[in-house]
Amino acid sequence: MSALVEPVQVHRVDRGASSLRDDLLVSEEPLEIRLGYGPLEDRRELRLSVTMRTPGHDEDLVRGFLLTEGIITGSGQLHRVAPCMSVKPEEQGNVMRAELDPEVVIEPERWQRNFYTTSSCGVCGKSSIEAVHVRNAGTLVPWGTIDPAVITALPEKMKAAQTVFRHTGGIHAAALFNREGDLLCLREDVGRHNAVDKVIGASLFDGHGASEGILLVSGRAGFELVQKCVVAGIPLMVAIGAPSSLAVQLARKHGLTLIGFLRDQRFNRYTP
Amino acid sequence: MSALVEPVQVHRVDRGASSLRDDLLVSEEPLEIRLGYGPLEDRRELRLSVTMRTPGHDEDLVRGFLLTEGIITGSGQLHRVAPCMSVKPEEQGNVMRAELDPEVVIEPERWQRNFYTTSSCGVCGKSSIEAVHVRNAGTLVPWGTIDPAVITALPEKMKAAQTVFRHTGGIHAAALFNREGDLLCLREDVGRHNAVDKVIGASLFDGHGASEGILLVSGRAGFELVQKCVVAGIPLMVAIGAPSSLAVQLARKHGLTLIGFLRDQRFNRYTP
Repeated sequence: MSALVEPVQVHRVDRGASSLRDDLLVSEEPLEIRLGYGPLEDRRELRLSVTMRTPGHDEDLVRGFLLTEGIITGSGQLHRVAPCMSVKPEEQGNVMRAELDPEVVIEPERWQRNFYTTSSCGVCGKSSIEAVHVRNAGTLVPWGTIDPAVITALPEKMKAAQTVFRHTGGIHAAALFNREGDLLCLREDVGRHNAVDKVIGASLFDGHGASEGILLVSGRAGFELVQKCVVAGIPLMVAIGAPSSLAVQLARKHGLTLIGFLRDQRFNRYTP
Repeated sequence: MSALVEPVQVHRVDRGASSLRDDLLVSEEPLEIRLGYGPLEDRRELRLSVTMRTPGHDEDLVRGFLLTEGIITGSGQLHRVAPCMSVKPEEQGNVMRAELDPEVVIEPERWQRNFYTTSSCGVCGKSSIEAVHVRNAGTLVPWGTIDPAVITALPEKMKAAQTVFRHTGGIHAAALFNREGDLLCLREDVGRHNAVDKVIGASLFDGHGASEGILLVSGRAGFELVQKCVVAGIPLMVAIGAPSSLAVQLARKHGLTLIGFLRDQRFNRYTP
């Protein structure tokens, strides 16, 4: 099991002058997700994916990933998430197995994708463009009136809780707040999609749901992050950075309220 | 075929006061890559991947992607990259086909990955952790002495050439410079891995190679971006943001000089 940060020695160059000093890096390691599925008398295993992530809250990551990728539709379909013990010593802690309810139907060929792809959008390896929009996504309960004071107060609350960023400056964050702007859950990860999956995994499986929640992300609002919000039932998404064209289209389609460019006391509302 | 940016109307909220105004969003659309491979008398097609990208320089993206993912090892193995015409009207411009030399051996099952994954690291869908490090990567020619003045001048040169960022603020950039710090090639994309693949695809296939080049990326230096540099033979990578632990490990292993946190007149050298 690894730490969230790792020490390193760096040559710091400042206006031409170089000095050696100690620094901290954000940890990045592969996580393999395996699925246990099928009837108890004929249990099967599927090696679902490998993602690079910052170790920590791996159970949350697996839960959120399975939900937002449409493999499960709720916490009742997932019995248990735990580290695999039957792996090589160097893989210990980096392989998680999720036990699905025997009733959940998994078609392995559905998840057999051609190759993988390297966009940070997160929509990768799907072998047909038509597959991109397919997901368990309905229409959200509209957020209603926005209170600007609640929105503009969010970044400081997130930043205050970001321990890893403070030490490394090299990590994404996602945070869930309630309607009043109180922080419910914060997660940090080298992968911005992982940070969102961790928050969703942690929040939606503790019983109170997120239909009244605000999701704040430290970076941009791409298509895939909007899709995750929609699948998780989160009605309001706020990004520090800019949204993309497809993110705005998808938000509009599903009734997600999308805010971007939240800086100082200003922001843009793109939908509705 | 889409534009790099799309117009949108936004509600701008500034200290509680809201006004409607015109804005521009960076375009994001899926791109499907298909491979034509095998002997001419028995030509086959593989639907390799779908990635979300900003339209434009799609040929560069395909070339760079095939190289950095280890499907080809040089430009001689790639005969042609062109848009597929035999697709639905709404997919026009979003499907590219790459014609490989008949001698290139493709094992489709090698590229059949379980599922896909949503980290912005770009290492996704591989069904085993052991696969993560496998790639056509050798040891680079060491960069040698760093001239701080060359390094600190890079961001301004990149920024001056970033047309899409100037209009939308929502896009990643990658740029290749020569040893003296002259800009050779710049590409912008919603996906930071795409931006790097576009630069590599454009630069490495125009004949002059990149073994003397500096790659500058607008964001962080993750494992996967370092891997792309190593595969492309680029000896010096500079990131505006922070590297991860695994990025530093990989750079050290392959002799890549890695610089991060380039801001104002300061930067950190992590390797060698």
